[in-house]
Amino acid sequence: MRYELYYWPEIQGRGEFIRLALEEAGASYADVARRKGGEDRLVALLGSTRLDQPPFAPPFLKAGRLMIAQTANILQYLGPRHGLAPKNEQGGLWVHQLQLTIADVVEEVHNTHHPIASALYYEQQRKEAKRYSREFWRRRPQKYLGYFERVLHRSGGPWLLGRRISYADLSLFQVVEGLRYAFPKSMRRLEPKIPGVVAVHDAVTERPRIAAYLASPRRIPFNEYGIFRHYKELDA
Amino acid sequence: MRYELYYWPEIQGRGEFIRLALEEAGASYADVARRKGGEDRLVALLGSTRLDQPPFAPPFLKAGRLMIAQTANILQYLGPRHGLAPKNEQGGLWVHQLQLTIADVVEEVHNTHHPIASALYYEQQRKEAKRYSREFWRRRPQKYLGYFERVLHRSGGPWLLGRRISYADLSLFQVVEGLRYAFPKSMRRLEPKIPGVVAVHDAVTERPRIAAYLASPRRIPFNEYGIFRHYKELDA
Repeated sequence: MRYELYYWPEIQGRGEFIRLALEEAGASYADVARRKGGEDRLVALLGSTRLDQPPFAPPFLKAGRLMIAQTANILQYLGPRHGLAPKNEQGGLWVHQLQLTIADVVEEVHNTHHPIASALYYEQQRKEAKRYSREFWRRRPQKYLGYFERVLHRSGGPWLLGRRISYADLSLFQVVEGLRYAFPKSMRRLEPKIPGVVAVHDAVTERPRIAAYLASPRRIPFNEYGIFRHYKELDA
Repeated sequence: MRYELYYWPEIQGRGEFIRLALEEAGASYADVARRKGGEDRLVALLGSTRLDQPPFAPPFLKAGRLMIAQTANILQYLGPRHGLAPKNEQGGLWVHQLQLTIADVVEEVHNTHHPIASALYYEQQRKEAKRYSREFWRRRPQKYLGYFERVLHRSGGPWLLGRRISYADLSLFQVVEGLRYAFPKSMRRLEPKIPGVVAVHDAVTERPRIAAYLASPRRIPFNEYGIFRHYKELDA
């Protein structure tokens, strides 16, 4: 089956967690909004009153007759079909639980530059962003990534679930990569304390399909429109 | 099977979405931390290095040998077992997608009083909370609840999925109830625009088991420690 991914064409954003899974799976997919006229199609679907199961926001994935939204939900659909999640219920719930915790991290990272409102520019909430980021780096990445470190310790590695890679490993890679881009100084201080998480990151970059993807124009570079943004004044 | 729910004993919080599902299901469960010594057990489990699948935070549910965390994930487990979600994959994905969108609302509501850091008191971020709440009420409840209104229009009602109640309806009730408590003035202005959502709220209160629960001491009253808090200065 050829999938259609709908996500904003100029950022990695939340869509990147889906792109990474599709790429690692070697799945056939169109990144619709990056094609001519595609963004109009995305916007039309968002505003459609004719869909029985309308998405609230991108990313959403068309898979045959299904239209699935919410990042973690899409991954939950793709995972067991492409060897990126266990097929049994207990394993599926566990990897999804990890993914939802990653979604919580991502939300908090977004708030480092947009603590007041997504609809306002960064420059309109810079002061609050500075305060948020300072508090964030006092404890949140330590707590979240320390948790994943603990999970890796229990699984025995090299992956979060043990011997087999899952979509949560790909997402954890993206979190590390994004935090390095956005907060290089703070991450340099944290990384020695989370060697297992860094090892997952490194192992993901060595997956042949991921390596090819990261080197391709399909991988949109980090920029100051997405979730992981580099503002020097926030990285104290 | 008798479930064990682990959640903070003094607030509705995120645990309430699970409590409502367990109550509507007529399931047998212990609200562990509300019993003598229970909160210590919760804290011990959170810090345990012996669990293979440790929770990051409450709520978590013990179901036989399973330990499941993340609110939406727990509901996804309970739903099809108790007639609160379709058993087929497409229906399961759809109701879960709705629940994840409700989780997004809940996160934003939490930020109305804690826009800077959960670890700080409200009084330490009151100024930012005022600005956040003002921006929030410019568009977010309208957008989110307007979306659910649209879903109800497509489903034909009376429930989000059509003729059968689901855990997402119970959660939507809780969102309306919580917003009424926290922002009575703002909600009075919004409600005429979302009659379908209000009808779901009202229909949930008429479910016999939910009515009995709401009238019982098992329902913790709203207060200023949970997600939905009433601060007059935030309800402009």
